[in-house]
Amino acid sequence: MNAFFQKLEDAAGKNNSRLCVGLDPRINKIPDPFRKEKDPIFAFNKAVIDAALPHACAFKPNLAFYEAAGPDGLAALKKTVEYIPRDIPVIADAKRGDIGSTAEAYAQAIFDYYRFDAVTLNPLLGTDSIAPFLKYEDRGLFILCLTSNPGSEDFQLPQKLYLSIVRKVKEWNKAGNCGLVVGATKTEYLKEIRALAPDLCILIPGVGAQGGDLEKTLKYAPDQTGGGYIINVSRGITEPPGEGEFQKRAAGAAKQYKIRINSQKERKA
Amino acid sequence: MNAFFQKLEDAAGKNNSRLCVGLDPRINKIPDPFRKEKDPIFAFNKAVIDAALPHACAFKPNLAFYEAAGPDGLAALKKTVEYIPRDIPVIADAKRGDIGSTAEAYAQAIFDYYRFDAVTLNPLLGTDSIAPFLKYEDRGLFILCLTSNPGSEDFQLPQKLYLSIVRKVKEWNKAGNCGLVVGATKTEYLKEIRALAPDLCILIPGVGAQGGDLEKTLKYAPDQTGGGYIINVSRGITEPPGEGEFQKRAAGAAKQYKIRINSQKERKA
Repeated sequence: MNAFFQKLEDAAGKNNSRLCVGLDPRINKIPDPFRKEKDPIFAFNKAVIDAALPHACAFKPNLAFYEAAGPDGLAALKKTVEYIPRDIPVIADAKRGDIGSTAEAYAQAIFDYYRFDAVTLNPLLGTDSIAPFLKYEDRGLFILCLTSNPGSEDFQLPQKLYLSIVRKVKEWNKAGNCGLVVGATKTEYLKEIRALAPDLCILIPGVGAQGGDLEKTLKYAPDQTGGGYIINVSRGITEPPGEGEFQKRAAGAAKQYKIRINSQKERKA
Repeated sequence: MNAFFQKLEDAAGKNNSRLCVGLDPRINKIPDPFRKEKDPIFAFNKAVIDAALPHACAFKPNLAFYEAAGPDGLAALKKTVEYIPRDIPVIADAKRGDIGSTAEAYAQAIFDYYRFDAVTLNPLLGTDSIAPFLKYEDRGLFILCLTSNPGSEDFQLPQKLYLSIVRKVKEWNKAGNCGLVVGATKTEYLKEIRALAPDLCILIPGVGAQGGDLEKTLKYAPDQTGGGYIINVSRGITEPPGEGEFQKRAAGAAKQYKIRINSQKERKA
């Protein structure tokens, strides 16, 4: 197991959790007290991280929400990555994909400048678009395979492109630093993907606001050892239900997701 | 013709040029005098823009090279977009693609914050990943169809995915704000793509450092009126051949590309 996936498994073991918390700050959804701070995005993320930390095995900021706030947003992103304790991996949800010489610059931005532990990548541009990231043998690369959104039916499902992607990722995975992204709304395909890639770690978004099926997901997601997957929840935790103090509600929501994931695991065992 | 494509045609007419200049500042390739400036990326871009302006119909910064420099790089990007005269369109080479709610944040970043005229997009995530950009009816969306790099053979060519993309882009193009990206290294497919999409504007990178064939490209790229395409050159102009003053060499290189494009056009006419 490479350094990133080992760190992920260690964090999952330590916190008894396979929950990844998405940090996707939508400016108009940030609660008032944080909006009054000098750096509202970072203040909000800090509150979410503090609340969710005992219940999470990883955090995953999606770069779009930081870019929407311009350079200030990116500065908040850097502070966010630095704030998360080093034993909890941080995944850049970037979905980048560009020709080789440009992909190199993206890899530098994500791994050298922001110092993320892992990244999500779009495979459409093929091998040379992934190669500069593959060189970082101690990091993690989650390649989009079958996404959680309705548009995945346009190009990913026809001709079973998602299976061609799995086959290619297995070729790319020489250093053991690759994983897949498969949406929780696509559980009917998860069994087939897992059968083709029994060893790859799968990052599973789409639970919560997107309506993915957690129970069915957990039936097929684990690898042979019962590990090898993480479940991402974003809005379900950063926009927690209920009334009262934000941080208590966020902590409660994270804990509930952790418990739901674990209880399904146990029911299966 | 929507506002963006009209602006592009006006600029092409005014400067008698279909050359788009890529602004991809590689920090270690920026000449010494600019590196000593307070903002080396912007100082370098300013020199390239001043040199190429009379010979270009558009500029295209690739966001990777700005992100690699952290928030300072993004601040230089914003200054670069603002520096380019408003009658010359600026295209964000971003290749973004994410689920609907996230794509909205990317669209805000690119169109509202940076105020780009157009953007390149990765279609792998399908309709809802493009929809938030489509709403900007006065801007331009260049969708990746067949890219210039070797990795395009992994997923874009098999099963003729590039033609499925063309068909989908035609559906998306209700406001007339869509175009395609087809690499100049893929001229053998350009004829087929142009036949399927006689009206879409095609952005063609891959001439110059990547070795694309300009002559064959110009045989098939134009639409029925002879317009509807732009040829992007990045390193061929920002890392110009020869000795002596940088700005003179960059201007000379841009002029030569413009002349080569125009002479092929005339030979064809």
